[in-house]
Amino acid sequence: MRNQRQYITSFSNPKVKWVSSLKEKRNRDEEKKFFIEGFREIQKAVSGSRNGSVPSLEIKIHSLFISPDCFLGENEEKLIEKVKCPVYELPKKIFEKISYRDRPDGLIAVAETPNAHYNWENFPKLDLNPILIIEGVEKPGNLGTILRTAEGAGVGLVLITDPRIDLFNPNVVRASTGTLFTLPTYISSLEETISHLTKQDYRIYAVTPEGKTLYTKPDMKKKSAFLFGSEQYGLTPNAKEKSHDTLYLPMFGEADSLNLAMSCGIVLYESLRQKG
Amino acid sequence: MRNQRQYITSFSNPKVKWVSSLKEKRNRDEEKKFFIEGFREIQKAVSGSRNGSVPSLEIKIHSLFISPDCFLGENEEKLIEKVKCPVYELPKKIFEKISYRDRPDGLIAVAETPNAHYNWENFPKLDLNPILIIEGVEKPGNLGTILRTAEGAGVGLVLITDPRIDLFNPNVVRASTGTLFTLPTYISSLEETISHLTKQDYRIYAVTPEGKTLYTKPDMKKKSAFLFGSEQYGLTPNAKEKSHDTLYLPMFGEADSLNLAMSCGIVLYESLRQKG
Repeated sequence: MRNQRQYITSFSNPKVKWVSSLKEKRNRDEEKKFFIEGFREIQKAVSGSRNGSVPSLEIKIHSLFISPDCFLGENEEKLIEKVKCPVYELPKKIFEKISYRDRPDGLIAVAETPNAHYNWENFPKLDLNPILIIEGVEKPGNLGTILRTAEGAGVGLVLITDPRIDLFNPNVVRASTGTLFTLPTYISSLEETISHLTKQDYRIYAVTPEGKTLYTKPDMKKKSAFLFGSEQYGLTPNAKEKSHDTLYLPMFGEADSLNLAMSCGIVLYESLRQKG
Repeated sequence: MRNQRQYITSFSNPKVKWVSSLKEKRNRDEEKKFFIEGFREIQKAVSGSRNGSVPSLEIKIHSLFISPDCFLGENEEKLIEKVKCPVYELPKKIFEKISYRDRPDGLIAVAETPNAHYNWENFPKLDLNPILIIEGVEKPGNLGTILRTAEGAGVGLVLITDPRIDLFNPNVVRASTGTLFTLPTYISSLEETISHLTKQDYRIYAVTPEGKTLYTKPDMKKKSAFLFGSEQYGLTPNAKEKSHDTLYLPMFGEADSLNLAMSCGIVLYESLRQKG
């Protein structure tokens, strides 16, 4: 059975204005909704990943905005059927106005903002290896790229501490290509994160240009958590002190030749290599 | 002695229009000039790197456009003195118009476009390890990030084959943070590159999702050249056939979880790790 569709024909339709308004953080906060654009991204939000010992974020789709003129294939209608929610159909011209993309694929979902705070009481026992901790990340696009890379490297859990950005910023969703919804990604305070992980025999490695140990030296077959700081400010002194060791990546040329996402990728693939 | 300065006070000054025109490839081609913005980038263009067995591109600065109101420190004047060329001083408002940046630092150089074709006759003997080969790169920003990462990983030479972009696109310069001028980076045909490197006992490894060998397996202490394809199209069949081996990176989740620059960084740092 087809979802009921409402046809929107005017730019000044309040629903159109409402979706667009979710590009602003204060509107996302007020409405407790956020914006997921794209077939692949919405599909991942709907499927999630509940198989691991920690599930990915649970995303509830509130409504869909579609423009069949922009569809690229035949799977779009199946996805729309699968999501039980109101569907608003728009002409291409109006859809392009609310889209974030140069070439939109005709699908935008509005979702309920989930509670992304890690619940240490519900999921106290962790055996995932490695865990990635990102402190104070500033750029949504960077966080997205990090999530995408972390999924590739087989990271089990990402904990974001003291973010300077909204985890549900559309640029996080976009740059993550939807891995925000399949790789378990949560917010947790640095204190709680370090204290819980330490109790569970994780070695916490702060990765920083001033690190003491070459990043390839630790035994990453053992439960490891890698802690990275913000692009501009690096790790807080507190984060460095509380870690069990600090790691550096060797670097020729200027000291800023690796960006945050690149450093993450290199360390995470070293962990994958060691685990064989 | 201070360079002679000409003061520009009008938006309609032909010099202002001329600099701006270099944002377009056809104007860069016609004028045989390109655009370098930023203190760090210009400094690297001026210093270059002539110590290795292959020098970096030789860059001749043609003219400088400056706006002292935007200077961030005290080194700008020293750099301007060092470059012997005409200097045009602009008010901040006009400078911001020609700048590529959100927060310009008051320095833009126009440089003569160098001949970037690798001269196999002049530099036939290579002992640099590793060498990076990029085939058909499409996105200027990606190439810049790759260069920046390659410099960090200690790559000796980058050869660009069949680029779909202009090597002197302002976004290459910007994303490379000027490493385009310090890391030897040249254009060469795929045929010539593979034939010359093979003769010199390089093992050429094509890195591709369909690769046969895990990327950590080859002995990278031996002379190695890593060949990467374009973001959208991957490597050409020719490139894969002509290589000695094809490498893959293990990947969890979706197959597209690593972008081109990230894959380069991971393979290059594995080479650095093996060399110890």
